[in-house]
Amino acid sequence: MAVRMAIVGATGLVGQTLLHVLQERRFPVRELRLFASARSSGQYLYFEGERLPVEPFTPERFHGLELSLWSAGAALSREYAWHIAQRGCLVVDNSSAWRHHPDVPLVVPEVNADALHAHRGIIANPNCATIQLVMLLAPVARRWGLRRVVVATYQSISGAGWKGIRQLYAELAQTSPEDIVAPGGIAYTTAFHRLDAEGWSEEERKIIAETRRILELPTLPITATCVRLPTLGGHAAAVWVETYQPVALPELRTLLSRQPGLIVLDEPKAQLYPHPRMVAGRDEVFVGRLRPDDSVPAGFSCWIVADNLRKGAATNAVQIAEALVTSVPRSTAEPLR
Amino acid sequence: MAVRMAIVGATGLVGQTLLHVLQERRFPVRELRLFASARSSGQYLYFEGERLPVEPFTPERFHGLELSLWSAGAALSREYAWHIAQRGCLVVDNSSAWRHHPDVPLVVPEVNADALHAHRGIIANPNCATIQLVMLLAPVARRWGLRRVVVATYQSISGAGWKGIRQLYAELAQTSPEDIVAPGGIAYTTAFHRLDAEGWSEEERKIIAETRRILELPTLPITATCVRLPTLGGHAAAVWVETYQPVALPELRTLLSRQPGLIVLDEPKAQLYPHPRMVAGRDEVFVGRLRPDDSVPAGFSCWIVADNLRKGAATNAVQIAEALVTSVPRSTAEPLR
Repeated sequence: MAVRMAIVGATGLVGQTLLHVLQERRFPVRELRLFASARSSGQYLYFEGERLPVEPFTPERFHGLELSLWSAGAALSREYAWHIAQRGCLVVDNSSAWRHHPDVPLVVPEVNADALHAHRGIIANPNCATIQLVMLLAPVARRWGLRRVVVATYQSISGAGWKGIRQLYAELAQTSPEDIVAPGGIAYTTAFHRLDAEGWSEEERKIIAETRRILELPTLPITATCVRLPTLGGHAAAVWVETYQPVALPELRTLLSRQPGLIVLDEPKAQLYPHPRMVAGRDEVFVGRLRPDDSVPAGFSCWIVADNLRKGAATNAVQIAEALVTSVPRSTAEPLR
Repeated sequence: MAVRMAIVGATGLVGQTLLHVLQERRFPVRELRLFASARSSGQYLYFEGERLPVEPFTPERFHGLELSLWSAGAALSREYAWHIAQRGCLVVDNSSAWRHHPDVPLVVPEVNADALHAHRGIIANPNCATIQLVMLLAPVARRWGLRRVVVATYQSISGAGWKGIRQLYAELAQTSPEDIVAPGGIAYTTAFHRLDAEGWSEEERKIIAETRRILELPTLPITATCVRLPTLGGHAAAVWVETYQPVALPELRTLLSRQPGLIVLDEPKAQLYPHPRMVAGRDEVFVGRLRPDDSVPAGFSCWIVADNLRKGAATNAVQIAEALVTSVPRSTAEPLR
C-alpha cells in the first residue's frame, strides 16, 4: 500500500531530514514530490538514488497526492493546508498554524496515537522541545500524577534553520552572517527566541500550551525558559517534575527504560549522560541526570536530549504518517469545522 | 593605608583577572607579589606598568605580607591557608576549601558584608554561580520571603580555567586539545561538571549549600542543574523563585534596579536581555526576562548573567579585600577553632 506523497519545504533543514528519515524507515513511497519556495525550484534532491526536481509550491500540484509532510512555516500552512486536506491529501504539518485547532490532533505517536483517529485531514506535529518533554512526562503522569513542571531548555541554533547554522559558522569564522536570527550573536553566547511585548517567547508559550494539550491536562502548572545555544545535534532540557505521589528513583528508571522511543543514559560514575552532539542522527529521546528533588514533597529532576531535526521534527512527522497509512482510516477527511 | 599583598595562582584565569581588577579599582597596593606553581615561575606579569616576577609558592615568601588573594585550587588552600592566616596575612580564598568552616565567613559584600567581622584570618569567596544567584535572591528574600528556588545554569567553559578555553578552541579548530576538561567534548555541545556517585556535580551541591549559608536560610528548599556550554564572557542562569508573599513585577523591577551591583536589562520589545558575551568585562550582575510565574501561588522567573571571572571570582574577592582594608579591623586574626 505505497503512497503518492509530497514534502512541502523540501530544501529546508527539516525537509532534508524528512528525506533521510523516509528512506531510513523504508516508508512505503509510491511517488514523491518535492515542493519549496520559488527561490529553490530548479534544484534537484536525491531520494533512494533517484534525482527529483524541486517544484514551486502551488495547490494544483497536489492533484492525485494522498499525503503531504509540511515544514514550510506557519503562514503557508495557515493559507493552504485546509484546502489541500479538503481535496483528499492528508497534511502532517510541522508548523504551529494548526496545533490548537479542535479538529486537528496534535500527536506524538508514542504518547497519544489514539488522538489521530479524530483527524479531519490535518495532523499537527508538535514543537520540537515539546515532543521530547512529553515523551518524558507522559509515563510519569500516568504513574504518579503531575503537580507542576519547570523546564529550562538548551536548544540548538539549528532550530532557526539553515539561517541559524550559517549565523553560527559565520560568527565563528569572524565573518558577517547573511541573515541574523540571533540579533545579539550566537557564537560563544546564548540567545532567546523572539520575545513578545509581555516578555515571553513563542517557544515558551508553545511548550506550555502544547504539553497541556498532548497530555490532556489543560490546567497543568508548567513554566518554561527557552534558550538558544551555539550547539548542534540536538535540543536539551533540564526538567523539574513535581508529582502527586512520591517517586522511587529505581522505579522511575525502569519505567522510562521500558518506554518506546526513550533511552535512559545515566551513569554518573562513568560520567555518561546524553548531550546534543551525542544524539545527532538518533531518533530516540535520551534521559539522564535522574535525581531526587528534595526541595519538593514529591518529585525528581532530570535532563533530556533529542535530535531536534529528527524526533523533534522529521521523525515524529514520519511516525505520524506511518500510523496514518497503517492503522488510521484514510477516508475521514471531512470539512474542518 | 596601602597594603603589602600577594596573588596566589597569579597565572591562572582568575589570577590574571585579579591583576586587572586591582588596577581598575585602584586598590591601595604597596607591594604586590605573584605566586604560582613551580611550572609558572620564571614568567613575568605586568601590574601598573611594572614587570613583576612570578615566584613559586612557598609559605616562607608570605613573610611581611598583610593580605593574599588565593585562586589556586582547594588542595593548596586546605594545606596552607590556615598557616598563612595565623602568621598575620589575611587570606581571601577563591577555592571551596574553607567555605563551610564556622570561623570562615562566606561573603558577597553587597549581600552579607557584616559576616566579615567574624573572620579569623580567612574569608571565603563563594562559587561563581552562587555569587550571581544570591545577588538576586537576597533582596527578594528580605521583601517577600523565599519558599523555593530552582536554578538551571548556563556556564561558560572558562569556569574550567585556561584548560577549558583551550579545549573549546582546539575542538572548534578540529585539533586535539592538550587537556580534556569535558570528556564528551564542549564545542557545539553541552557538558556537566564532574558527577559524583549519587549523580550530582560538586557545582550543584555548592550552589545549594553556599546559597543557604550566605542567605542564612539553612533549610531553604533549593535545587540546581549546572551545565557547561561553549560560551565565553559569563555564566548565565534561569531562575524560578517561589516566594511566601505575592510578588508585584513592577515593584520587583524597582527593588532590583536599586540594588548595588545589579543591573536590570529587560526590554523584551527591543529584544534586549543580558547574555554571556555582552557581560564580559563587567563587574555587575545583570537581570533580565523578569516574568510572573503562574505555575505557583507566588513567584517569578528570570535570567541572570555575570562575568564569571569578575563578579563570579576576582571582583568579589577584591571587594572583600576592600572591605577588609577599610572597615574591618585587621587584628582579629586568632587561631581558628
